[in-house]
Amino acid sequence: MGNVEDIFQNQLLELRRGSIVLAIVGVLHIKQQYGYSLLETLRQHDFNVEGNTLYPLLRRLQTQGVLTSNWDTSDSRPRKYYSLTPDGEALYKKLTVEWTAMNTKIHKIITEKL
Amino acid sequence: MGNVEDIFQNQLLELRRGSIVLAIVGVLHIKQQYGYSLLETLRQHDFNVEGNTLYPLLRRLQTQGVLTSNWDTSDSRPRKYYSLTPDGEALYKKLTVEWTAMNTKIHKIITEKL
Repeated sequence: MGNVEDIFQNQLLELRRGSIVLAIVGVLHIKQQYGYSLLETLRQHDFNVEGNTLYPLLRRLQTQGVLTSNWDTSDSRPRKYYSLTPDGEALYKKLTVEWTAMNTKIHKIITEKL
Repeated sequence: MGNVEDIFQNQLLELRRGSIVLAIVGVLHIKQQYGYSLLETLRQHDFNVEGNTLYPLLRRLQTQGVLTSNWDTSDSRPRKYYSLTPDGEALYKKLTVEWTAMNTKIHKIITEKL
């Protein structure tokens, strides 16, 4: 049973890797957010991502042109806001379509009558 | 836009990796199958997996105790049938629960009102 637990954990990891970028761009599609509020919003949606996972991912997505960031200095505490670029919006739409299609396929298999 | 296409393809790959084992155990949960019929059934469910991806995966899942195989020699052409072990059934149930939970979380994000 040890092996099956390993496979389960491994599959879980693959599943999370496959969904975390969609969760991030999905949340930023709704509205721009600074790092900490994004982390909190993801947690409210049950994506318990750690800062040391999220921040490098945000930097990578920014380098890849999915996100852009702007400093809001109107407050006493300046905050770096992340928002989607037009490419990021396009990615969001494609991933949403793909996720929905994948879920439809899986749903058909797991609800098929014996 | 090249980068965004790369990210999309990469995410697609992660998503497929996260779902192919569930598709395989889901199909074998319905009934035992030999390699080629499993391949065909997966394709009918729009999982366009290649034999050179599927067969090594089946061997790995068998080594890990998820699947078992039996030769059916009653026909003129002997066929190796794969079926789920009790551990495989347990994995199927856990992955199904996890997939459904993940889909619920993603669905909430992508349908949230602006």
